[in-house]
Order: sequence, then C-alpha cells, then structure tokens
Amino acid sequence: MTDLPQLADRICYVLVRTSHPGNIGSAARAIRTMGFTRLELVSPYRFPDPEANALAAGADDVLANAGIHADLVDGLAGSSLALGLSARRRGVNLPEISPREAVQQVLAAAARGEQVALVFGNERTGLENEELARCHAMVRIPSVDDFSSLNLSQAVQVMAYELRVAMLGDESPAPPPEHDEPPADAVQMEQFYRHLAQTLDDIDFHKGREPTTIMLRLRKLFQRAQPDARELRVLHGILADAQRMAGLAKHK
Amino acid sequence: MTDLPQLADRICYVLVRTSHPGNIGSAARAIRTMGFTRLELVSPYRFPDPEANALAAGADDVLANAGIHADLVDGLAGSSLALGLSARRRGVNLPEISPREAVQQVLAAAARGEQVALVFGNERTGLENEELARCHAMVRIPSVDDFSSLNLSQAVQVMAYELRVAMLGDESPAPPPEHDEPPADAVQMEQFYRHLAQTLDDIDFHKGREPTTIMLRLRKLFQRAQPDARELRVLHGILADAQRMAGLAKHK
Repeated sequence: MTDLPQLADRICYVLVRTSHPGNIGSAARAIRTMGFTRLELVSPYRFPDPEANALAAGADDVLANAGIHADLVDGLAGSSLALGLSARRRGVNLPEISPREAVQQVLAAAARGEQVALVFGNERTGLENEELARCHAMVRIPSVDDFSSLNLSQAVQVMAYELRVAMLGDESPAPPPEHDEPPADAVQMEQFYRHLAQTLDDIDFHKGREPTTIMLRLRKLFQRAQPDARELRVLHGILADAQRMAGLAKHK
Repeated sequence: MTDLPQLADRICYVLVRTSHPGNIGSAARAIRTMGFTRLELVSPYRFPDPEANALAAGADDVLANAGIHADLVDGLAGSSLALGLSARRRGVNLPEISPREAVQQVLAAAARGEQVALVFGNERTGLENEELARCHAMVRIPSVDDFSSLNLSQAVQVMAYELRVAMLGDESPAPPPEHDEPPADAVQMEQFYRHLAQTLDDIDFHKGREPTTIMLRLRKLFQRAQPDARELRVLHGILADAQRMAGLAKHK
C-alpha cells in the first residue's frame, strides 16, 4: 500500500509564466497546507523574490526546492500525465474534465508509481494553445460564465484540496497497471513528435496542406495512447525506415 | 424547484475581524467566481480600501453590497444556521464536520428557504471561542497537521467551490467524450492493422525478425488510443505515402 507522502511526492504543480511572485508564494502555501511540496516553475517573471517568500507564510522549503525551467517541456520532464487548468473552452482538441475527474486520473497514475503534473498558466492569459497541446486533458474548475477567472493560487488550492480529500478518502485500491512499463515522459514524447513531423515532411505527406492541424490531431491520438519507452522505440524504428525509403526514392 | 441564483442568495460569507483588506477583496473574487454575492464584514480592520478593490479583480459589486457590522451577532442576523471555519480543534463543544458535510447542511437549509452563514475568523487568530459559540458546527478543511493554516481567501474559495459543485449536482454525468467522433469499429481497426503490417513489410522494417511480436505490440498501443474514423484516415494516409516512397525506392 502506498502511503500519502509517497503519493504526494509523485504529484507536481507546474506554474507557467507566472507574472506575480506573490502568486508563486501563495501557491506554495496552498499546496503545503494539503501535504504537497513539489512546485515546478516555467519561465517565472520574477523568482526568487521576497514577495514570494512573504506570501508563502512559512512554506519556504517548497520555494527553495522549486525547479525552474526554460520551457514547459522541461517542466514536464518525468511526468507521464499532464493536466492543464483552463477557465475557458478553447479551440483546443482536448477532453475537458472536472477537478474531481482529474483527481481520479491523477491518483490512479500516482498509485501506479508514475509522476503526474498539474499545469497552471499565466494569471492573465492562462495556458497558450501550444502549452495545452502538451497536456492530456483540460481541467475546468466550474466557475460561473460571467466571472470565470479564479486567482492562480486559488485554482492551485482547489486542486490540492480535492486531491487531499480524495487521498484521505475512500482509499480505493490502485487500479491494475495498464502498461508493462510506465508511459514515456514529456521529453520523450516531444522527441517522438519531432521525428514524426520530420518523417511526414520527408515522405511528402502534406502536399501543400498546413501541417499544424495534422500534428495536433496526431498528438491527441498518441497522448491518448500514452506509449511507453519500448513502444516509442518501435515507433521511432518505423519512422526511421520510412525516412530511409524516402531518401532512397529521392537520391536513387 | 429552487434555481441556483436563488439558493446562492441565501448563503452568506461572514468575515470576522479581517486584518488585511486585500483578503476581503480576494474573498469577494473567490465567492463571485462560484456564483455567490453576499459578503458580510464584522469589524473589518480597514474597509473600504483600494487594496480590497484591487484584489477583487472586478467583483466590486460584491464589495459595494457587503454589509458592515459591529459584532458577529449583527453579522448573523437573519441566518438560521451558522458554520464556523476553524483550522484547529479548540476547547469548544461543537461538532466538527468536513467541508463536504457542511455543504450538505448548508444546501438543505437553503433549499428550505432559510438563510445560512459561513463564518471565517481573523487571519492570524481565527475565530475566538465566543465567536464559535455563535455557530452550530465547526468546519475543518483537512489541512496537514504541521502546516494547517490556509490563507483566509483560500478557505473561502474552498467552501464556495464545494458549494458550487454540490449545487451543480453530483449528477456526475458520463465523462465528456474524448473523441469528436466515436472510435472506429473492429472492422475498420483490422483494415488499419492489415495496412500497417503491409507497410512494415514494404519499408523493410522487420529485417528478418519475426513480425508477430511487433504487430501485437502495435495493436496494443493503437487499441489504447482508440482512434476514430477521421484519425484512421490520417494514419492510412501516412502509411500510403510511406508505401509510395518504398515503391519509388525499389522501382526507380
């Protein structure tokens, strides 16, 4: 049986392009009250900063241990499941789930020993579409339509609270593993998508059409599949052979 | 049937001896995002205050309509049920309930047409014992023992969120579809696997290895992904182009 601190250690809170250091501090306090400690910061506008420590209200250990990353792919390294918080429906082709549904997915993955990320965008602009494209689902806190935007650290608090209640609650046993190996992490998936995109070019798949839509569609498909590292090796192998054929076709 | 705004109007958030006007503003924003508007302030240290409006982030109507009271008895006028938030057990002889239990009591009373109050104490000292004595139960948000104190507006947000989720009904409906179209059927999947197997042959992927294991592995991967018909068309298109390159490579 996995204990609570072990589970909590597999769940990280990723704050992307946060403008106000005070919100980073408030988020640190919010997760700390619920038994979490892992904060990852992607391109924070100002950090470290005394205002962050002031609002952390004693959760300075969370701030001191926070990872700082240049982009979201780095911030998601090691995570097999990434869920992006978003106040609005977007033109993004992602399943939209409630916090409570999200918590079930997060805890199931964490119980299998996987690392999971909850991703929170910039205070004013939220997550960009290309950031959401790195996520497996979009979590919408059910705010009212005419005043939908929660403060960043409030959204963090709601998710951390829901996770803690579920973790304390009906400790439903770990579901059976769905993979032989854990799913590949975000860095491995990005390598695969780059290889896939390059191969589509090489075999002249696009024929003048816009590649973006197709790549988003393929990302969605493979994110649902959550390939593990061995499966990714097979896929890379197939792509490499298709590229080899394209090379032969052109240079022969 | 009582509608949501009517129910929400019967629920007030009572902030007692709040020190920081920013917290009043953040609390106003928090309840507003969840469809509530009734804020009652008991002996606020500074109010009105520009910092409250700054942090209300547009919920100025909530602040403008907030009642201001000299003591908690006045602040609770008209409420038949008062629940006090408290981080710690006290020497107070009150039932201690969880936020989710509290929400059931609140909504039951509101549905009967009663007015209900959620009472939040001072940031540093919480509710005094004589203030808790005005309440019917003590609500404890399940924070960790070694870092138990949520920011005031975070506690307000958690309660408002729990209320809204319960008001929207635990009609946890079928999770939203993850596909725009339904997944492809077995016949379509078999056509795809045949095309995939043929393509692997054509691009000389196997190089003498046994194809069966690889095909089983790929089947497992794509079964997890559950492609829909449109996604299958994209995959067929990619395979066709890889085959075309293989044909050119061989016959050129």
